[in-house]
Amino acid sequence: MKRIVYGIVAAAALIAAASALAQTPSWAPPPESARCPSKWGTGDERGSANHMKPETVLNAVRFVRTGEVIELGRILDASIPVFPGRSFKLTTKRTAGFFGSNRLGANEEVVDAEIGQVGTQFDGFAHVTHGDVLYNCLRLDDVATATGFTKLGIQNVGALIARGVLIDVAGYKGVEMLPDTYEITVADLEGALQRQNLSLQPGDAVVINTGWGKLWGSDNARYTRTNPGIGIRAGEWLIAKDPMLIGSDNWTIEVFPNPDPLVIVPVHQLAITFHGVHLLENMKLDELAAKRAYEFAFIVQPLKLQGATGSTVAPIAVR
Amino acid sequence: MKRIVYGIVAAAALIAAASALAQTPSWAPPPESARCPSKWGTGDERGSANHMKPETVLNAVRFVRTGEVIELGRILDASIPVFPGRSFKLTTKRTAGFFGSNRLGANEEVVDAEIGQVGTQFDGFAHVTHGDVLYNCLRLDDVATATGFTKLGIQNVGALIARGVLIDVAGYKGVEMLPDTYEITVADLEGALQRQNLSLQPGDAVVINTGWGKLWGSDNARYTRTNPGIGIRAGEWLIAKDPMLIGSDNWTIEVFPNPDPLVIVPVHQLAITFHGVHLLENMKLDELAAKRAYEFAFIVQPLKLQGATGSTVAPIAVR
Amino acid sequence: MKRIVYGIVAAAALIAAASALAQTPSWAPPPESARCPSKWGTGDERGSANHMKPETVLNAVRFVRTGEVIELGRILDASIPVFPGRSFKLTTKRTAGFFGSNRLGANEEVVDAEIGQVGTQFDGFAHVTHGDVLYNCLRLDDVATATGFTKLGIQNVGALIARGVLIDVAGYKGVEMLPDTYEITVADLEGALQRQNLSLQPGDAVVINTGWGKLWGSDNARYTRTNPGIGIRAGEWLIAKDPMLIGSDNWTIEVFPNPDPLVIVPVHQLAITFHGVHLLENMKLDELAAKRAYEFAFIVQPLKLQGATGSTVAPIAVR
Amino acid sequence: MKRIVYGIVAAAALIAAASALAQTPSWAPPPESARCPSKWGTGDERGSANHMKPETVLNAVRFVRTGEVIELGRILDASIPVFPGRSFKLTTKRTAGFFGSNRLGANEEVVDAEIGQVGTQFDGFAHVTHGDVLYNCLRLDDVATATGFTKLGIQNVGALIARGVLIDVAGYKGVEMLPDTYEITVADLEGALQRQNLSLQPGDAVVINTGWGKLWGSDNARYTRTNPGIGIRAGEWLIAKDPMLIGSDNWTIEVFPNPDPLVIVPVHQLAITFHGVHLLENMKLDELAAKRAYEFAFIVQPLKLQGATGSTVAPIAVR
Repeated sequence: MKRIVYGIVAAAALIAAASALAQTPSWAPPPESARCPSKWGTGDERGSANHMKPETVLNAVRFVRTGEVIELGRILDASIPVFPGRSFKLTTKRTAGFFGSNRLGANEEVVDAEIGQVGTQFDGFAHVTHGDVLYNCLRLDDVATATGFTKLGIQNVGALIARGVLIDVAGYKGVEMLPDTYEITVADLEGALQRQNLSLQPGDAVVINTGWGKLWGSDNARYTRTNPGIGIRAGEWLIAKDPMLIGSDNWTIEVFPNPDPLVIVPVHQLAITFHGVHLLENMKLDELAAKRAYEFAFIVQPLKLQGATGSTVAPIAVR
Repeated sequence: MKRIVYGIVAAAALIAAASALAQTPSWAPPPESARCPSKWGTGDERGSANHMKPETVLNAVRFVRTGEVIELGRILDASIPVFPGRSFKLTTKRTAGFFGSNRLGANEEVVDAEIGQVGTQFDGFAHVTHGDVLYNCLRLDDVATATGFTKLGIQNVGALIARGVLIDVAGYKGVEMLPDTYEITVADLEGALQRQNLSLQPGDAVVINTGWGKLWGSDNARYTRTNPGIGIRAGEWLIAKDPMLIGSDNWTIEVFPNPDPLVIVPVHQLAITFHGVHLLENMKLDELAAKRAYEFAFIVQPLKLQGATGSTVAPIAVR
Repeated sequence: MKRIVYGIVAAAALIAAASALAQTPSWAPPPESARCPSKWGTGDERGSANHMKPETVLNAVRFVRTGEVIELGRILDASIPVFPGRSFKLTTKRTAGFFGSNRLGANEEVVDAEIGQVGTQFDGFAHVTHGDVLYNCLRLDDVATATGFTKLGIQNVGALIARGVLIDVAGYKGVEMLPDTYEITVADLEGALQRQNLSLQPGDAVVINTGWGKLWGSDNARYTRTNPGIGIRAGEWLIAKDPMLIGSDNWTIEVFPNPDPLVIVPVHQLAITFHGVHLLENMKLDELAAKRAYEFAFIVQPLKLQGATGSTVAPIAVR
Repeated sequence: MKRIVYGIVAAAALIAAASALAQTPSWAPPPESARCPSKWGTGDERGSANHMKPETVLNAVRFVRTGEVIELGRILDASIPVFPGRSFKLTTKRTAGFFGSNRLGANEEVVDAEIGQVGTQFDGFAHVTHGDVLYNCLRLDDVATATGFTKLGIQNVGALIARGVLIDVAGYKGVEMLPDTYEITVADLEGALQRQNLSLQPGDAVVINTGWGKLWGSDNARYTRTNPGIGIRAGEWLIAKDPMLIGSDNWTIEVFPNPDPLVIVPVHQLAITFHGVHLLENMKLDELAAKRAYEFAFIVQPLKLQGATGSTVAPIAVR
């Protein structure tokens, strides 16, 4: 859920314009009655992570054939692109003196960061809301505290292991990188999967290559200004496939800004708030795409940050 | 590497006493000529993580039979035991307003912590030193900056997958928890492995159950005051087995304080500084031990914190 | 506003007990109609700081006779007593290398703290609320953001210079330190002032010596568990004197916990929320009291932290 | 001490060039024998703050005639210019629930920042070094710890009150702002003082107006890229006047970069390391200059941050 600050300004102006023109937004959130309780049950806090079961693990491990590991996580340092208002700061606490007859020195470091929402980041269900309503119709005032959420915290997730499927949309389109505000359509997803001779199954970790990751560290300003990604229809289509998570090599998974300026990152709400599907942003997908590693065991271990909205992670593909 | 603050006070007093008595420490670090270059080569920064190869992964995956995942990481919150001077603080950044026609709200959080050295923590090679000398005889002044180490940073490690072996010393001794300053001996390790009908192989992730983890969150003061763990001889024996890492359910892996008050956490130096073997502290091992899950696929994904001394992690056993 | 965490637990239990007994609290906040707009006008954000005018300064300077400066602020380090959930952490960023022909090195430090609410601390008007209502009947949702308050921030205050008056209640009572939960009464304040041959004037910086500061750093647990201080009546009496601020050498200015367990730190609401009077906590008053420096020029410079609820400060008395 | 990061790059290149040309730097630090012990004595940690005495206060108060207070400190928020690697982050901890029969809510905030070196900042003597040598020839390894300096910490300073003298160099030159890399000369200082009919006295707080502060918040990039300021000769001249501190409305007090590319911020070393004179950077001087308030009581209260290199401050002029 990114670029809201800029989005707000743009959206405010456009909403003003729109109301003058009596425009209506192209998309409206479903009513609470249609989305709560979630399909995982009243009181559920795990959403798509409920797919994580022994059989999911066994299914994933089937794809481990050579033992090759491909890293999908970004290095965290002060130079990474961050959403306005976030930061990553690491300060070394260098040993001051050496102790004992063995002259032991010890170093550590302080990190101050929006650690749940920097780098390659795994979105939990406290991250976004529809008004004051969260996933499974929990209310913000009932679960938010100054030091974490009493429900929906990322510590609920646990390690996830699933069949991973790369949908290489950039490859399908024959480009290194999709254009800056390109909306990936259902046809794009279907076409790319057909090209790869793959179909999605419930519980998959679905990962979409847009090529946008190429800008990471080389043009951070452009990387965070807009990004290509799935639109609302493609989001609905993917969610209907019942995945464990949806990931991509961009900030927002979804196209940003949305072509309809009245709505702000709607796929975030759709996935997280309305359907309880985890998102995984800022993945490093170049190696996976270059190797045409379309099907693999996907493994991610979110940090067990009590009450947090997400976790920076270092996921891998194994095949 | 824990309890140094208290250790310093004790050690200073004892060293003073010792010099009066002309005592000599029971252990002395090997000379640089005997330990550098490391067995992994001049300039190596990965040490025991060099064991991570496709065949290691394939070997580990062999132990996945039911798809059961056992979590080995602790939840991170403000109530966890931390070494003096460290802290874990999470502050929710709650959405201020809802944006767009879809009334999007967004929450995130700031975490300030010694994130490399809190919770279940994976020690990298910048963590401890022998005087101003680090692993592979790198010099502190050459690699330490105020914002990270230019060499030996934890981002070098990457995900590790290996055959995991639990050595249940508490179980072997027939106790729920080893005594407060019990030194685990070579005989203990050999006896426990024999009882489990297992032997160690190069590249294993070796995990030692002391039962000490029972105190985590229930008696933090005692948890961090001392702990049972391996002594120097057992450390040397384990390192000679050429593991990928050594983990345990205590602060220091090793017995703390060392029975010889002149030396401070010597196994840290032995493993990290002299032999380049990673340590993994504060593991949650109760479930593993209770299920007698002695052999498994071990998976850990250290965060890619540039230049950091370690990483909080959420490892798992899969079987 | 301190000890809320413990207070909550106690209060919850007692409120439960009270409702069973059909008890009613001994004090109820005034209705909004009686307190808004504040006496400083609709939209005012400065409250008692409005006393700060050239004539206030000139009046204060009259008390500078010898040029003696008495420091009233506490040193900030990791050992200070802090309210549960707060912390003070300072990490040195040590120079890494020396630059130029003049071999310049540069050190700095990162501080992570509830900097507005640690050490000797100056409370602004965003600090406490009555339900979701702040000073001058501003609403929490209208002014709170994740990164500061859009109104009532401490940056509005500016430097304050005023006639300072020490009311030495401990001295009046002939004790080094008032008892742990002693409620200072109106009679105590009047008696102490009479003993000192002083009376209060509008715009004074009123500072109350309880002796409790003696525990700072020597018994932090006791220091923060309870403290002697003014009760509601004495608070009302003081506020009626129209001071610029009320300070003391304890956590809460007011007696904690309040003798009526149904109400939580009511003087905070009374002063800050209902009357717009600043509080100044954790002052170091031993030297002032020992020297019987009852009347002086008081000077404080709150940090200009945009949107903050308070500021750690280093105030002085000059005479 | 600013812009070192960029300075390093430039300096490295230039030093390389210089050595090829066999250039020598235009300035060399004095030998230790010539500067230690400092004129304030062996072991002194207070340097120019030793000027702070009752008579200094009485002398300053003489200039308070109307009671007018002019604020000289900048507001601290996330938009201020900061030196690369520094940051200022404030996160509101918003009340979660209302407690007691009086429905008390409490807000506070976490600040993470190089709090000693952001905003209007007061430099202590641990801030810069000559190689590993600090003020009064203390050695870095002897006094630096991971959590503060054991000597020379800013907590030693205390409140400072002195006769303040504004030297309006921009006004003397008839410009709103001195050029980007203008080196203020001794003649400039003498000329400006003559125009103002003032002379300096030992113990003065000397404040130099360059006009550069106009860029604060309006062109942060230019503000921190270079700045006009005193050169080495003017620095030596000022230090010979024996001031309590030297302040200015720019990052570095001194011209940056130094006209001699071989030396990096030499006036910092000259003032802090060699002569123990405090610096006060990023002052807000526009109002003072516009009002031609050349002589005043200057008051500053550095935070008592144990072992810190400096303190953000909110100083004032009173007249």
